[in-house]
Amino acid sequence: MRDISRDPDGAAPELAVAVGDVVAARARIAGAVTRTPLLPAAWAPGDLWLKAENLQPIGAFKLRGAANAIARLEPDVRARGVVTHSSGNHGQAVAWAARAAGIPAVIVMPEDAMAVKVTATKALGADVVTVPSARRELAADAIRAERGMTLVPPFDHPDVIAGQGTLAIEVLEDLDGIDTMLVPVGGGGLASGVGVAVAALSPRTRVVGVEPALAADARESLAAGRRIAWDTRSTGRTIADGTRTPLVGEITFPIIQATVDEIVTVDEDEILAAVATLVHRAHLVVEPSGALSIAAYLAAPRKFGRTVAVLSGGNIDPSVLARALALTS
Amino acid sequence: MRDISRDPDGAAPELAVAVGDVVAARARIAGAVTRTPLLPAAWAPGDLWLKAENLQPIGAFKLRGAANAIARLEPDVRARGVVTHSSGNHGQAVAWAARAAGIPAVIVMPEDAMAVKVTATKALGADVVTVPSARRELAADAIRAERGMTLVPPFDHPDVIAGQGTLAIEVLEDLDGIDTMLVPVGGGGLASGVGVAVAALSPRTRVVGVEPALAADARESLAAGRRIAWDTRSTGRTIADGTRTPLVGEITFPIIQATVDEIVTVDEDEILAAVATLVHRAHLVVEPSGALSIAAYLAAPRKFGRTVAVLSGGNIDPSVLARALALTS
Repeated sequence: MRDISRDPDGAAPELAVAVGDVVAARARIAGAVTRTPLLPAAWAPGDLWLKAENLQPIGAFKLRGAANAIARLEPDVRARGVVTHSSGNHGQAVAWAARAAGIPAVIVMPEDAMAVKVTATKALGADVVTVPSARRELAADAIRAERGMTLVPPFDHPDVIAGQGTLAIEVLEDLDGIDTMLVPVGGGGLASGVGVAVAALSPRTRVVGVEPALAADARESLAAGRRIAWDTRSTGRTIADGTRTPLVGEITFPIIQATVDEIVTVDEDEILAAVATLVHRAHLVVEPSGALSIAAYLAAPRKFGRTVAVLSGGNIDPSVLARALALTS
Repeated sequence: MRDISRDPDGAAPELAVAVGDVVAARARIAGAVTRTPLLPAAWAPGDLWLKAENLQPIGAFKLRGAANAIARLEPDVRARGVVTHSSGNHGQAVAWAARAAGIPAVIVMPEDAMAVKVTATKALGADVVTVPSARRELAADAIRAERGMTLVPPFDHPDVIAGQGTLAIEVLEDLDGIDTMLVPVGGGGLASGVGVAVAALSPRTRVVGVEPALAADARESLAAGRRIAWDTRSTGRTIADGTRTPLVGEITFPIIQATVDEIVTVDEDEILAAVATLVHRAHLVVEPSGALSIAAYLAAPRKFGRTVAVLSGGNIDPSVLARALALTS
């Protein structure tokens, strides 16, 4: 493992993920994920490029981490299948990656999950088990133990982090001279994976995380130097549902400390406006969590120099899309 | 010029555009256009891929033809600038390509053009001249003569056709074994350019044009063996505004005859449903004319085999987008 710390006094913390892990992940998952385009945003002020992860087959970057975690399992372990609990992009990512690997998957969802998400996950070939929301983790663990399956966590695992970082390698292949990469922060899997790759492969590029002001636990944690949980009565209110995680990961946090330069926040109106702008100007459908990076950029376009904004996903609720579009028409 | 006819009796009509013109165009315009992604549509039945021309900087393939036509001008002629009449994608394409070439552009628009289109075209650095709709062509010609500018026609010109065909070369580089390419047909610039490239470079691939049933003049012309104009009281009613052209081009028509295998039609409901499906499933914003290919595919997904659908543009009127989304939510 290589030292990727930017600590100027030369301390060399041993991080859980090294750039070599990300490079290896990229080759490992190439067959299961789309190499998404990096699109010039000529309509925006300044120098902005869009990494369109909403164009992944399941509509989100989560596929990368899930595919890498599954590919890393020993063959006999992998053959018994995988399980996770998620009503969102991670559940579909695990279902997709499991099908691509030819293994069974069980996705545990809360009873009140939207029917369309249950249907979509089943359509990917996974078994869906619905339980009361509070029992999701226990139910997933019981299935894991009973069927000898492996649990694929949504962000706090080295293989998941390394998988998410692969998108940064693609970006760095596609564009030179990047001053800033803007990435949404929920549990920190994407930010830490991108951070590891960028710190090693393009040290001049700043990695800037973006959180909703209503769920700025990672920003506060970074400032405090320790993980600080936010009340879900706040984080649950943001429209950016992919970032409602109230506490950054135990494994992702030290990587974020070592490789992410700054975390900025945006408010709810800015997020919805960014969704609408992406529809009208970029012709892309991006979910609120995926539009955080654009919200941050448009608030201060000259601040970031040549910027790549990661559009992390496109699975937007139709009623939320209608609200965003009503803002501007 | 090479014979690209599929005429089985060996007749060799000399077409206005040869595959070499398309190959040359591609190198010529590489700096001015985006190499758009070819995206797998895993959500669709069968084997469908999307050529996402809505992700061009101006949101439409028209940039290709305009850039090629401008690049082909003699330097002293080019320096005097270009003029066209269009309130749609072609006007923005000429404005963009002229700016990229560092030359002046005048875009003539009807007085009742949407303010947002006038603003967008001006933002690209072009002079916009508004005149009564009936006087657009005369006004453009007067400006051409007065200022020594060159008129860039929207479709019926060999350099424009060759430019549009460049997208087919990209597709053929990205995917093997294509059975069908589905392309929208308005004046026929896109269909003929794609036809020339595919007939020469992948003769096993069928090129199928798609028109709205309300504007099926090219289909009728192909069946009759001569150009037949439709009444604009019909063509003007389709929501696919890019295909309201009532008569296929004099230059594009013989190329379509020689290289396009079939033209199919779709109705208005199918077009709007395709727009909504692309938003929800592909996370792409596509205008009605751009969604024609998907409407045709979804009407008979198994008919076409491995299919590439060209999504020709994304500049959708917000009220039309709202109508399409209201269908499905």
